[in-house]
Amino acid sequence: MAVPTTRTARRGRPGYDLESLLRIAVKLFNERGYDGTSMEDLSRKLGITKSAIYHHVSSKQELLRLAVGRALDGLFAVVEEARTVPGRAIDQLEFLVRGSVTVLADRLPFVTLLLRVRGNTKVERDALAKRREFDHIVSALVEQAAIDGDIRADIDPATTARLLFGMVNSLVEWYRPRRDDDLHTIADTIATIAFEGIRLPGGE
Amino acid sequence: MAVPTTRTARRGRPGYDLESLLRIAVKLFNERGYDGTSMEDLSRKLGITKSAIYHHVSSKQELLRLAVGRALDGLFAVVEEARTVPGRAIDQLEFLVRGSVTVLADRLPFVTLLLRVRGNTKVERDALAKRREFDHIVSALVEQAAIDGDIRADIDPATTARLLFGMVNSLVEWYRPRRDDDLHTIADTIATIAFEGIRLPGGE
Repeated sequence: MAVPTTRTARRGRPGYDLESLLRIAVKLFNERGYDGTSMEDLSRKLGITKSAIYHHVSSKQELLRLAVGRALDGLFAVVEEARTVPGRAIDQLEFLVRGSVTVLADRLPFVTLLLRVRGNTKVERDALAKRREFDHIVSALVEQAAIDGDIRADIDPATTARLLFGMVNSLVEWYRPRRDDDLHTIADTIATIAFEGIRLPGGE
Repeated sequence: MAVPTTRTARRGRPGYDLESLLRIAVKLFNERGYDGTSMEDLSRKLGITKSAIYHHVSSKQELLRLAVGRALDGLFAVVEEARTVPGRAIDQLEFLVRGSVTVLADRLPFVTLLLRVRGNTKVERDALAKRREFDHIVSALVEQAAIDGDIRADIDPATTARLLFGMVNSLVEWYRPRRDDDLHTIADTIATIAFEGIRLPGGE
Protein backbone atom coordinates (compact mmCIF):
# COMPACT_ATOMS: atom_id res chain seq x y z
CA MET A 1 0.00 0.00 0.00
CA ALA A 2 2.76 2.41 1.01
CA VAL A 3 4.03 3.46 -2.38
CA PRO A 4 6.51 6.28 -1.79
CA THR A 5 5.22 9.69 -2.82
CA THR A 6 7.22 11.24 -5.60
CA ARG A 7 6.54 14.93 -5.39
CA THR A 8 7.44 15.29 -9.08
CA ALA A 9 4.53 13.11 -10.08
CA ARG A 10 2.11 15.74 -8.76
CA ARG A 11 3.96 18.76 -10.08
CA GLY A 12 1.89 20.48 -12.72
CA ARG A 13 -0.92 17.93 -12.30
CA PRO A 14 -4.31 19.07 -11.15
CA GLY A 15 -4.89 18.50 -7.46
CA TYR A 16 -7.81 16.36 -6.40
CA ASP A 17 -9.96 16.73 -3.36
CA LEU A 18 -11.86 13.73 -2.04
CA GLU A 19 -14.99 14.78 -3.94
CA SER A 20 -13.42 14.87 -7.40
CA LEU A 21 -11.37 11.75 -6.64
CA LEU A 22 -14.57 9.94 -5.72
CA ARG A 23 -16.42 11.06 -8.86
CA ILE A 24 -13.65 9.85 -11.15
CA ALA A 25 -13.29 6.56 -9.25
CA VAL A 26 -17.04 5.90 -9.55
CA LYS A 27 -16.97 6.68 -13.27
CA LEU A 28 -14.16 4.17 -13.70
CA PHE A 29 -15.89 1.53 -11.53
CA ASN A 30 -19.04 1.91 -13.63
CA GLU A 31 -17.10 1.61 -16.89
CA ARG A 32 -14.85 -1.32 -16.00
CA GLY A 33 -16.57 -2.88 -13.02
CA TYR A 34 -15.39 -2.50 -9.42
CA ASP A 35 -13.48 -5.80 -9.48
CA GLY A 36 -11.94 -4.93 -12.83
CA THR A 37 -10.54 -1.57 -11.65
CA SER A 38 -7.28 -1.47 -9.70
CA MET A 39 -5.86 1.43 -7.70
CA GLU A 40 -3.13 1.36 -10.36
CA ASP A 41 -5.79 2.02 -13.06
CA LEU A 42 -7.22 4.84 -10.96
CA SER A 43 -3.83 6.43 -10.34
CA ARG A 44 -3.11 6.30 -14.09
CA LYS A 45 -6.49 7.85 -14.91
CA LEU A 46 -5.97 10.64 -12.37
CA GLY A 47 -2.35 11.21 -13.30
CA ILE A 48 -1.29 11.08 -9.65
CA THR A 49 0.59 8.48 -7.63
CA LYS A 50 -1.19 5.80 -5.66
CA SER A 51 0.10 7.31 -2.43
CA ALA A 52 -1.55 10.60 -3.38
CA ILE A 53 -4.79 8.63 -3.53
CA TYR A 54 -4.05 6.96 -0.19
CA HIS A 55 -3.73 10.45 1.25
CA HIS A 56 -7.54 10.65 0.85
CA VAL A 57 -8.73 7.07 1.31
CA SER A 58 -7.27 3.99 2.93
CA SER A 59 -8.29 1.52 0.22
CA LYS A 60 -10.34 0.81 -2.90
CA GLN A 61 -13.02 -0.61 -0.58
CA GLU A 62 -13.23 2.73 1.20
CA LEU A 63 -13.86 4.46 -2.13
CA LEU A 64 -16.66 1.97 -2.78
CA ARG A 65 -18.08 2.48 0.71
CA LEU A 66 -18.14 6.26 0.25
CA ALA A 67 -19.67 5.91 -3.21
CA VAL A 68 -22.51 3.52 -2.37
CA GLY A 69 -23.02 5.55 0.83
CA ARG A 70 -23.93 8.56 -1.32
CA ALA A 71 -26.62 6.50 -3.03
CA LEU A 72 -27.93 4.88 0.15
CA ASP A 73 -27.93 8.14 2.16
CA GLY A 74 -30.06 9.72 -0.56
CA LEU A 75 -32.53 6.84 -0.68
CA PHE A 76 -32.86 6.55 3.11
CA ALA A 77 -33.32 10.31 3.44
CA VAL A 78 -36.38 9.88 1.19
CA VAL A 79 -37.56 7.02 3.42
CA GLU A 80 -37.32 9.30 6.48
CA GLU A 81 -39.13 12.07 4.65
CA ALA A 82 -41.83 9.66 3.46
CA ARG A 83 -42.56 8.68 7.07
CA THR A 84 -43.53 12.28 7.83
CA VAL A 85 -45.92 12.55 4.88
CA PRO A 86 -49.39 13.07 6.29
CA GLY A 87 -51.94 10.63 5.00
CA ARG A 88 -52.01 6.93 4.37
CA ALA A 89 -49.47 4.26 3.38
CA ILE A 90 -50.37 4.70 -0.29
CA ASP A 91 -49.43 8.40 -0.08
CA GLN A 92 -46.12 7.57 1.59
CA LEU A 93 -45.49 4.92 -1.06
CA GLU A 94 -46.10 7.40 -3.86
CA PHE A 95 -43.82 9.91 -2.12
CA LEU A 96 -41.11 7.25 -1.84
CA VAL A 97 -41.39 6.28 -5.52
CA ARG A 98 -41.25 9.90 -6.71
CA GLY A 99 -38.49 10.83 -4.26
CA SER A 100 -36.39 7.86 -5.35
CA VAL A 101 -36.62 9.00 -8.97
CA THR A 102 -35.10 12.33 -7.91
CA VAL A 103 -32.32 10.63 -5.94
CA LEU A 104 -31.51 8.34 -8.87
CA ALA A 105 -31.30 11.24 -11.27
CA ASP A 106 -29.31 13.48 -8.90
CA ARG A 107 -26.88 10.75 -7.85
CA LEU A 108 -26.95 8.70 -11.05
CA PRO A 109 -23.34 7.36 -11.06
CA PHE A 110 -23.51 6.47 -7.36
CA VAL A 111 -26.84 4.66 -7.67
CA THR A 112 -25.65 2.91 -10.84
CA LEU A 113 -22.70 1.56 -8.86
CA LEU A 114 -24.95 0.56 -5.95
CA LEU A 115 -27.26 -1.40 -8.25
CA ARG A 116 -24.31 -3.34 -9.72
CA VAL A 117 -22.80 -4.36 -6.40
CA ARG A 118 -22.39 -8.15 -6.21
CA GLY A 119 -21.37 -8.91 -2.65
CA ASN A 120 -17.78 -10.13 -2.89
CA THR A 121 -16.46 -7.87 -0.12
CA LYS A 122 -17.75 -6.66 3.25
CA VAL A 123 -18.59 -3.23 1.84
CA GLU A 124 -20.60 -4.88 -0.93
CA ARG A 125 -22.40 -7.24 1.46
CA ASP A 126 -23.27 -4.30 3.72
CA ALA A 127 -24.62 -2.39 0.71
CA LEU A 128 -26.74 -5.38 -0.32
CA ALA A 129 -28.08 -5.61 3.25
CA LYS A 130 -29.11 -1.94 3.09
CA ARG A 131 -30.76 -2.53 -0.29
CA ARG A 132 -32.75 -5.40 1.23
CA GLU A 133 -33.73 -3.13 4.12
CA PHE A 134 -34.99 -0.56 1.62
CA ASP A 135 -36.94 -3.26 -0.27
CA HIS A 136 -38.56 -4.37 2.99
CA ILE A 137 -39.65 -0.81 3.73
CA VAL A 138 -41.26 -0.52 0.29
CA SER A 139 -42.82 -3.95 0.65
CA ALA A 140 -44.26 -3.06 4.08
CA LEU A 141 -45.81 0.12 2.67
CA VAL A 142 -47.41 -1.88 -0.17
CA GLU A 143 -48.74 -4.35 2.40
CA GLN A 144 -50.14 -1.59 4.62
CA ALA A 145 -51.77 0.15 1.65
CA ALA A 146 -53.47 -3.15 0.75
CA ILE A 147 -54.69 -3.54 4.36
CA ASP A 148 -55.97 0.05 4.21
CA GLY A 149 -57.98 -0.97 1.16
CA ASP A 150 -56.22 1.61 -1.00
CA ILE A 151 -54.49 -0.79 -3.36
CA ARG A 152 -55.43 -4.19 -4.69
CA ALA A 153 -54.82 -7.10 -2.34
CA ASP A 154 -54.55 -9.71 -5.13
CA ILE A 155 -50.87 -9.06 -5.83
CA ASP A 156 -47.97 -10.07 -3.63
CA PRO A 157 -46.51 -7.04 -1.77
CA ALA A 158 -42.86 -8.15 -2.11
CA THR A 159 -43.23 -8.78 -5.86
CA THR A 160 -45.06 -5.49 -6.29
CA ALA A 161 -42.31 -3.65 -4.40
CA ARG A 162 -39.65 -5.25 -6.63
CA LEU A 163 -41.55 -4.36 -9.80
CA LEU A 164 -42.21 -0.75 -8.77
CA PHE A 165 -38.50 -0.30 -8.17
CA GLY A 166 -37.76 -2.27 -11.34
CA MET A 167 -39.35 0.70 -13.11
CA VAL A 168 -37.58 3.28 -10.95
CA ASN A 169 -34.17 1.59 -11.14
CA SER A 170 -34.39 1.18 -14.92
CA LEU A 171 -33.58 4.90 -15.03
CA VAL A 172 -29.88 4.11 -14.56
CA GLU A 173 -30.05 2.26 -17.90
CA TRP A 174 -31.69 4.95 -20.01
CA TYR A 175 -31.93 8.29 -18.21
CA ARG A 176 -29.31 10.80 -19.27
CA PRO A 177 -29.41 14.23 -17.58
CA ARG A 178 -28.43 15.96 -20.81
CA ARG A 179 -31.37 14.53 -22.69
CA ASP A 180 -34.60 16.40 -22.86
CA ASP A 181 -36.45 14.02 -20.56
CA ASP A 182 -37.98 16.07 -17.83
CA LEU A 183 -37.56 14.46 -14.44
CA HIS A 184 -41.00 15.46 -13.17
CA THR A 185 -42.58 13.96 -16.27
CA ILE A 186 -40.70 10.70 -15.72
CA ALA A 187 -41.78 10.59 -12.06
CA ASP A 188 -45.37 11.32 -13.15
CA THR A 189 -45.25 8.55 -15.76
CA ILE A 190 -43.95 6.01 -13.25
CA ALA A 191 -46.58 7.04 -10.70
CA THR A 192 -49.30 6.91 -13.37
CA ILE A 193 -48.34 3.44 -14.59
CA ALA A 194 -47.84 2.10 -11.07
CA PHE A 195 -50.96 3.53 -9.45
CA GLU A 196 -53.45 3.95 -12.30
CA GLY A 197 -52.19 1.59 -15.00
CA ILE A 198 -52.07 2.43 -18.69
CA ARG A 199 -55.39 0.91 -19.79
CA LEU A 200 -58.24 3.37 -20.27
CA PRO A 201 -61.43 2.36 -18.50
CA GLY A 202 -63.37 2.94 -21.72
CA GLY A 203 -61.16 0.61 -23.76
CA GLU A 204 -62.27 -2.99 -24.29
CA MET B 1 -4.77 -18.16 -30.64
CA ALA B 2 -3.23 -21.42 -31.89
CA VAL B 3 -2.18 -22.95 -28.62
CA PRO B 4 -1.04 -26.51 -29.38
CA THR B 5 -3.48 -29.16 -28.20
CA THR B 6 -2.01 -31.37 -25.55
CA ARG B 7 -4.07 -34.53 -25.63
CA THR B 8 -3.06 -35.25 -22.05
CA ALA B 9 -4.84 -32.15 -20.85
CA ARG B 10 -8.17 -33.64 -21.91
CA ARG B 11 -7.50 -37.17 -20.71
CA GLY B 12 -9.83 -38.05 -17.88
CA ARG B 13 -11.51 -34.60 -18.10
CA PRO B 14 -15.15 -34.34 -18.95
CA GLY B 15 -15.77 -33.54 -22.58
CA TYR B 16 -17.73 -30.42 -23.44
CA ASP B 17 -20.08 -29.91 -26.32
CA LEU B 18 -20.78 -26.39 -27.54
CA GLU B 19 -23.93 -26.19 -25.39
CA SER B 20 -22.28 -26.93 -22.06
CA LEU B 21 -19.25 -24.81 -23.01
CA LEU B 22 -21.59 -21.90 -23.72
CA ARG B 23 -23.49 -22.28 -20.43
CA ILE B 24 -20.30 -22.26 -18.37
CA ALA B 25 -18.86 -19.32 -20.33
CA VAL B 26 -22.05 -17.29 -19.78
CA LYS B 27 -22.01 -18.09 -16.07
CA LEU B 28 -18.42 -16.84 -15.88
CA PHE B 29 -19.17 -13.71 -17.94
CA ASN B 30 -22.07 -12.89 -15.61
CA GLU B 31 -19.94 -13.40 -12.51
CA ARG B 32 -16.81 -11.53 -13.60
CA GLY B 33 -18.03 -9.39 -16.48
CA TYR B 34 -17.35 -10.14 -20.14
CA ASP B 35 -14.32 -7.83 -20.27
CA GLY B 36 -12.99 -9.27 -17.03
CA THR B 37 -13.06 -12.88 -18.26
CA SER B 38 -10.23 -14.17 -20.43
CA MET B 39 -10.15 -17.37 -22.49
CA GLU B 40 -7.44 -18.38 -20.03
CA ASP B 41 -9.94 -18.03 -17.14
CA LEU B 42 -12.48 -20.04 -19.09
CA SER B 43 -10.01 -22.81 -19.91
CA ARG B 44 -9.02 -23.01 -16.24
CA LYS B 45 -12.66 -23.18 -15.17
CA LEU B 46 -13.42 -25.92 -17.69
CA GLY B 47 -10.23 -27.82 -17.01
CA ILE B 48 -9.48 -28.06 -20.73
CA THR B 49 -6.90 -26.35 -22.94
CA LYS B 50 -7.67 -23.16 -24.80
CA SER B 51 -7.28 -25.02 -28.10
CA ALA B 52 -10.00 -27.43 -26.98
CA ILE B 53 -12.24 -24.36 -26.62
CA TYR B 54 -11.15 -23.06 -30.03
CA HIS B 55 -12.28 -26.40 -31.45
CA HIS B 56 -15.84 -25.14 -30.77
CA VAL B 57 -15.60 -21.37 -31.19
CA SER B 58 -13.20 -19.05 -32.96
CA SER B 59 -13.01 -16.43 -30.20
CA LYS B 60 -14.42 -15.03 -26.97
CA GLN B 61 -16.51 -12.67 -29.11
CA GLU B 62 -18.10 -15.66 -30.83
CA LEU B 63 -19.11 -17.05 -27.43
CA LEU B 64 -20.69 -13.70 -26.62
CA ARG B 65 -22.44 -13.59 -30.01
CA LEU B 66 -23.91 -17.07 -29.48
CA ALA B 67 -24.94 -16.22 -25.92
CA VAL B 68 -26.71 -12.91 -26.59
CA GLY B 69 -28.17 -14.54 -29.71
CA ARG B 70 -30.01 -17.02 -27.47
CA ALA B 71 -31.58 -14.11 -25.59
CA LEU B 72 -32.40 -12.07 -28.70
CA ASP B 73 -33.79 -15.06 -30.65
CA GLY B 74 -36.16 -15.75 -27.77
CA LEU B 75 -37.33 -12.14 -27.50
CA PHE B 76 -37.79 -11.69 -31.26
CA ALA B 77 -39.69 -14.99 -31.50
CA VAL B 78 -42.18 -13.47 -29.04
CA VAL B 79 -42.34 -10.33 -31.22
CA GLU B 80 -43.22 -12.49 -34.26
CA GLU B 81 -45.81 -14.40 -32.27
CA ALA B 82 -47.28 -11.15 -30.91
CA ARG B 83 -47.85 -9.91 -34.46
CA THR B 84 -50.17 -12.87 -35.12
CA VAL B 85 -52.25 -12.25 -31.98
CA PRO B 86 -55.76 -11.39 -33.11
CA GLY B 87 -57.09 -8.18 -31.67
CA ARG B 88 -55.70 -4.75 -31.08
CA ALA B 89 -52.29 -3.26 -30.33
CA ILE B 90 -52.99 -3.38 -26.59
CA ASP B 91 -53.55 -7.15 -26.81
CA GLN B 92 -50.32 -7.61 -28.75
CA LEU B 93 -48.53 -5.44 -26.18
CA GLU B 94 -49.82 -7.54 -23.31
CA PHE B 95 -48.80 -10.72 -25.18
CA LEU B 96 -45.31 -9.27 -25.70
CA VAL B 97 -44.93 -8.32 -22.01
CA ARG B 98 -46.09 -11.74 -20.80
CA GLY B 99 -44.08 -13.63 -23.43
CA SER B 100 -40.94 -11.69 -22.54
CA VAL B 101 -41.31 -12.71 -18.89
CA THR B 102 -41.25 -16.35 -20.01
CA VAL B 103 -38.19 -15.80 -22.21
CA LEU B 104 -36.36 -14.02 -19.38
CA ALA B 105 -37.09 -16.84 -16.96
CA ASP B 106 -36.27 -19.63 -19.44
CA ARG B 107 -33.08 -18.02 -20.70
CA LEU B 108 -32.13 -16.13 -17.54
CA PRO B 109 -28.30 -16.27 -17.80
CA PHE B 110 -28.39 -15.32 -21.49
CA VAL B 111 -30.75 -12.38 -20.97
CA THR B 112 -28.74 -11.27 -17.91
CA LEU B 113 -25.66 -11.12 -20.12
CA LEU B 114 -27.57 -9.30 -22.88
CA LEU B 115 -28.78 -6.64 -20.43
CA ARG B 116 -25.23 -6.00 -19.22
CA VAL B 117 -23.69 -5.57 -22.67
CA ARG B 118 -21.87 -2.23 -22.95
CA GLY B 119 -20.91 -1.84 -26.59
CA ASN B 120 -17.12 -2.08 -26.61
CA THR B 121 -16.96 -4.63 -29.44
CA LYS B 122 -18.87 -5.19 -32.69
CA VAL B 123 -20.82 -8.09 -31.17
CA GLU B 124 -21.85 -5.84 -28.28
CA ARG B 125 -22.78 -2.94 -30.57
CA ASP B 126 -24.88 -5.31 -32.73
CA ALA B 127 -26.63 -6.59 -29.60
CA LEU B 128 -27.36 -3.04 -28.46
CA ALA B 129 -28.79 -2.26 -31.92
CA LYS B 130 -31.12 -5.27 -31.64
CA ARG B 131 -32.17 -4.13 -28.16
CA ARG B 132 -33.02 -0.70 -29.56
CA GLU B 133 -35.01 -2.39 -32.36
CA PHE B 134 -36.95 -4.33 -29.72
CA ASP B 135 -37.59 -1.12 -27.73
CA HIS B 136 -38.91 0.57 -30.88
CA ILE B 137 -41.33 -2.29 -31.49
CA VAL B 138 -42.66 -1.99 -27.92
CA SER B 139 -42.82 1.78 -28.22
CA ALA B 140 -44.75 1.55 -31.54
CA LEU B 141 -47.28 -0.82 -29.94
CA VAL B 142 -47.78 1.59 -27.03
CA GLU B 143 -48.25 4.41 -29.55
CA GLN B 144 -50.78 2.43 -31.60
CA ALA B 145 -52.70 1.40 -28.49
CA ALA B 146 -52.95 5.09 -27.52
CA ILE B 147 -54.20 5.96 -31.03
CA ASP B 148 -56.74 3.12 -30.73
CA GLY B 149 -57.97 4.78 -27.55
CA ASP B 150 -57.17 1.68 -25.49
CA ILE B 151 -54.47 3.22 -23.31
CA ARG B 152 -53.96 6.70 -21.94
CA ALA B 153 -52.47 9.18 -24.38
CA ASP B 154 -51.02 11.46 -21.69
CA ILE B 155 -47.81 9.47 -21.23
CA ASP B 156 -44.91 9.32 -23.65
CA PRO B 157 -44.86 5.99 -25.56
CA ALA B 158 -41.05 5.63 -25.52
CA THR B 159 -40.86 6.30 -21.77
CA THR B 160 -43.77 3.94 -21.15
CA ALA B 161 -42.08 1.22 -23.21
CA ARG B 162 -38.86 1.65 -21.22
CA LEU B 163 -40.70 1.51 -17.89
CA LEU B 164 -42.76 -1.55 -18.83
CA PHE B 165 -39.56 -3.37 -19.68
CA GLY B 166 -37.89 -1.87 -16.62
CA MET B 167 -40.35 -4.04 -14.69
CA VAL B 168 -39.86 -7.07 -16.93
CA ASN B 169 -36.07 -6.80 -17.02
CA SER B 170 -35.84 -6.41 -13.25
CA LEU B 171 -36.48 -10.16 -13.15
CA VAL B 172 -32.82 -10.82 -13.90
CA GLU B 173 -32.03 -9.11 -10.58
CA TRP B 174 -34.39 -11.00 -8.31
CA TYR B 175 -36.03 -13.97 -10.05
CA ARG B 176 -34.45 -17.31 -9.17
CA PRO B 177 -35.99 -20.41 -10.80
CA ARG B 178 -35.51 -22.46 -7.64
CA ARG B 179 -37.54 -20.04 -5.58
CA ASP B 180 -41.23 -20.56 -5.14
CA ASP B 181 -42.19 -17.59 -7.29
CA ASP B 182 -44.60 -18.88 -9.86
CA LEU B 183 -43.85 -17.48 -13.30
CA HIS B 184 -47.48 -17.06 -14.30
CA THR B 185 -48.15 -15.13 -11.11
CA ILE B 186 -45.21 -12.83 -11.84
CA ALA B 187 -46.43 -12.26 -15.41
CA ASP B 188 -49.94 -11.58 -14.05
CA THR B 189 -48.58 -9.11 -11.49
CA ILE B 190 -46.59 -7.22 -14.13
CA ALA B 191 -49.60 -7.13 -16.47
CA THR B 192 -51.86 -6.01 -13.61
CA ILE B 193 -49.57 -3.19 -12.51
CA ALA B 194 -48.87 -2.08 -16.08
CA PHE B 195 -52.42 -2.19 -17.43
CA GLU B 196 -54.64 -1.67 -14.41
CA GLY B 197 -52.38 0.00 -11.84
CA ILE B 198 -52.31 -0.90 -8.16
CA ARG B 199 -54.72 1.75 -6.84
CA LEU B 200 -58.24 0.55 -6.13
CA PRO B 201 -60.92 2.75 -7.69
CA GLY B 202 -62.68 2.93 -4.33
CA GLY B 203 -59.54 4.04 -2.50
CA GLU B 204 -58.58 7.52 -1.37
